Amino acid sequence: MNFKVKKSEIVFKGKVFDLQVDEIEYESGNKAVREVAVHPGGAVIVPVKNDGKLIMVKQFRYPFQKFMLELPAGKLDKGEGPSKCAERELKEETGYSSKNISKLGAITTTPGFCSEVLHIYLAKDLQEGNHNREEGEYGMELFEFTLDEIEEKITNGKIIDSKTICGIHLYKNILN
Amino acid sequence: MNFKVKKSEIVFKGKVFDLQVDEIEYESGNKAVREVAVHPGGAVIVPVKNDGKLIMVKQFRYPFQKFMLELPAGKLDKGEGPSKCAERELKEETGYSSKNISKLGAITTTPGFCSEVLHIYLAKDLQEGNHNREEGEYGMELFEFTLDEIEEKITNGKIIDSKTICGIHLYKNILN
Repeated sequence: MNFKVKKSEIVFKGKVFDLQVDEIEYESGNKAVREVAVHPGGAVIVPVKNDGKLIMVKQFRYPFQKFMLELPAGKLDKGEGPSKCAERELKEETGYSSKNISKLGAITTTPGFCSEVLHIYLAKDLQEGNHNREEGEYGMELFEFTLDEIEEKITNGKIIDSKTICGIHLYKNILN
Repeated sequence: MNFKVKKSEIVFKGKVFDLQVDEIEYESGNKAVREVAVHPGGAVIVPVKNDGKLIMVKQFRYPFQKFMLELPAGKLDKGEGPSKCAERELKEETGYSSKNISKLGAITTTPGFCSEVLHIYLAKDLQEGNHNREEGEYGMELFEFTLDEIEEKITNGKIIDSKTICGIHLYKNILN
């Protein structure tokens, strides 16, 4: 590369992410600062019922102070692999479990300033059960939609979450 | 809602985002912390040439220390509207300009902890010109791909950027 890292510091250690601030110097001598939200990554699940409907969750998103419609998803626990995380979050958020989970891909959510990678899984042959939500997940509601209904919600701005649109995109690509 | 904000503090003011840490208290009496990367938002451009090919950029992404293939995009300048930002970033990053820019939608990149909203625009009738990149955009390269080539790269993991996959998804939905 055309720069060197002169200093790297974790200026904040958070529950969800740490904040790293690096000072870099280009070959030209110019200096710059790079801020990185250091995130452990997570898993996103595309849960498809035998009738073809997809299960989604509506949950309160603090940065926007509103409820948003999304695919189930969550952060990797320490030492947890992404497929285990997908199984766990599916169960925790929806109550459903699955022994038929396969990988659809992985995405970076906002690679300019955040190291988050989300691994996306398809879950089929769903078994109904009880969910196990955390207190912060108060008010979370389950919905079932056909793919056409989801596309309509993407088109009219009712679904705006990027991991959800990416999950739908990857799922549709294996159907074609 | 079932909580009150007891304290809200900007603990870091950055170039790209600020870090806000809130202490909240649920009706139950339980307390929790909410970390928010406060981001101004930005614009993403889906630039389509008259021959149907899309213009993409490959650029160095510091959090991953590697080059990634993405749609052109950038942060809103202070006071700048998203369509102006789209015009400006298209020109800066690719050299192309367009008087035929229309909105495809908007996405949240990672709504659990970041307030970033990206507005996605379709740009047609492109006029070639000179780009005007910043030093941090060193090594940025332009590519042209058909939609089929882009889908292949999404499927094989060569394109993993979420705003790019969302931009392609929204663009394909207006073609159908």
